[in-house]
Amino acid sequence: MLPTITWDNDRVILIDQRLLPTEEIYLECLDYIQVAEAIEEMAIRGAPAIGVAAAYGVALGVNKVKESDDLEEEFERILVRLGDTRPTARNLFWALERMKQTFDNHKHLALPELKHGLIQEAIAIDKQDVETNKKIGYWGRGLIQNGQNILTHCNAGALATAGYGTALGVIRAAYEQGKKIRVFADETRPILQGARLTCWELDRDGIPVVLITDNMAGYLMKIGRIDAVIIGADRIARNGDTANKIGTYSVAVLAKEHSLPFYVAAPLNTIDFSLANGDAIPIEERNPEEVKKLAGQCITVPDIEVHNPAFDVTPAEYITAIITEKGVAKPPFTQSLASFKG
Amino acid sequence: MLPTITWDNDRVILIDQRLLPTEEIYLECLDYIQVAEAIEEMAIRGAPAIGVAAAYGVALGVNKVKESDDLEEEFERILVRLGDTRPTARNLFWALERMKQTFDNHKHLALPELKHGLIQEAIAIDKQDVETNKKIGYWGRGLIQNGQNILTHCNAGALATAGYGTALGVIRAAYEQGKKIRVFADETRPILQGARLTCWELDRDGIPVVLITDNMAGYLMKIGRIDAVIIGADRIARNGDTANKIGTYSVAVLAKEHSLPFYVAAPLNTIDFSLANGDAIPIEERNPEEVKKLAGQCITVPDIEVHNPAFDVTPAEYITAIITEKGVAKPPFTQSLASFKG
Repeated sequence: MLPTITWDNDRVILIDQRLLPTEEIYLECLDYIQVAEAIEEMAIRGAPAIGVAAAYGVALGVNKVKESDDLEEEFERILVRLGDTRPTARNLFWALERMKQTFDNHKHLALPELKHGLIQEAIAIDKQDVETNKKIGYWGRGLIQNGQNILTHCNAGALATAGYGTALGVIRAAYEQGKKIRVFADETRPILQGARLTCWELDRDGIPVVLITDNMAGYLMKIGRIDAVIIGADRIARNGDTANKIGTYSVAVLAKEHSLPFYVAAPLNTIDFSLANGDAIPIEERNPEEVKKLAGQCITVPDIEVHNPAFDVTPAEYITAIITEKGVAKPPFTQSLASFKG
Repeated sequence: MLPTITWDNDRVILIDQRLLPTEEIYLECLDYIQVAEAIEEMAIRGAPAIGVAAAYGVALGVNKVKESDDLEEEFERILVRLGDTRPTARNLFWALERMKQTFDNHKHLALPELKHGLIQEAIAIDKQDVETNKKIGYWGRGLIQNGQNILTHCNAGALATAGYGTALGVIRAAYEQGKKIRVFADETRPILQGARLTCWELDRDGIPVVLITDNMAGYLMKIGRIDAVIIGADRIARNGDTANKIGTYSVAVLAKEHSLPFYVAAPLNTIDFSLANGDAIPIEERNPEEVKKLAGQCITVPDIEVHNPAFDVTPAEYITAIITEKGVAKPPFTQSLASFKG
């Protein structure tokens, strides 16, 4: 399995996803600020992976605290910095909240024990994420039929998580059952997570994958080449409205137009039960240079105006089912998701 | 106005659209084979521009014929080579048919007169295309309201024609009326005609333009940022089914979902009255390297499978109106387009 991120002897090691698949280089983070920068700059991305990285970031930050430091103040600084990296992924805030709880539970102990407790908690979050993805795969694989062509957008794979993947976890589980499936991977501009990461992951595992540009999905559906869509999620409101990589909403509309099932695969910690619907999910606007440049070269008029939202929200009515580690939620999601809670 | 292509002293000069906007370099074609290669390799592209280039190619080819050559045989060779470049654009075959008619009408004359006749015919096709686009602009501008945000896909501008443009001709005409409009340009992977050509053209003319990736259009429609869609066409069946750059169909589905008008702007020589509907329009599959590489660099696993259709067909039911030089055709298009014929 791919080592997306690991705790190794007071360091956090992560594969630099900006360079894949051309270069396979590991990044070493020695403090929480380096982890925060790795999240911001998308060296690590994907909601569950961001959550795990943030947990390790907290552990790394507290691990550097000295007896003479103001512990509470330093902890607050760490939380704020890590929480300030990317606004959309629910898992980031979920992981920070869980680390805060662990901090609160352990802060009466001696500093070395607190440090140990936080490191153990981060490692537990990491390990649990892989187990969760295996469960998502187990529940989801029954939705994939032998011989199907599955469209996915962005990368909701091993690289987007601690391992195995959410959407790609379901695909892996179906493939491991012996189902003959073929994945169509949207390249996913501007960052090309589909072309760079999904193709790389699936190709390594021997799962057949065909790369297309984002604007080809509709045509392929129209000529009957796609049987189902499965994607991951960055934040899901309690009614099922789902924020995911920009372009997901377009794929959902196209799936509806062609009467194709549209599945979301995500752990329960991606669900934001505080939000009644997706309207309040913050959508990150990223640097225009991501759109204007490709492989370091400008592909347009240098000073042209650019819009670069990183995510969109797919309303629940476009979603056939949400696959979680506790089972497959069907509409109405307000009820089905609530039944999986806690 | 942009000099997309010109006849100059027994040569054809065209701006190399593969290098725009980074480099503004003109390509000199000295024989018809160079013109055919320029079309194949997309140094010149856009259905009307391909038609004009093919007409010049024929003129160039015949211009080189010697008294000792077999005129009919040589003419046939020229037509076959130029017709074999790209299968989808109707205007290519329309232009070749018109040049064949001119050839048939002039072949009884002395060779110098035949050559002169064909050159004059190609120049006439070139000039008429600009006039046609101005008329399309005149008829279409009434469909654009002051203050609107208009989405376009690919480049149906001056560069896709002999000048002024079809879809961008309508936008230019509305802008020249003093309407405050803003264009959202899909970057249009894999060749990036939107990012490279549409942004460049509109920016030169001072028309406000915002660049987005193809997968952002749905989200922008959902949040109310798009008021109408206008695109060009490569071939239109007599019922209105429209082949255009890959991704157009997806935009049409999204426009329908958001109840937005979806306009096609094209000259009547883009209409293939021999086709009852779009099912028989040939869809060109291009080199996978176009998807795998960007600015010369591989953006994915080098040996990954790729699907690279260059066009898709948008069924007539998604189209609000087809803007031609004879007026605006409304559904049912079989009737309205037929009334413009001949």
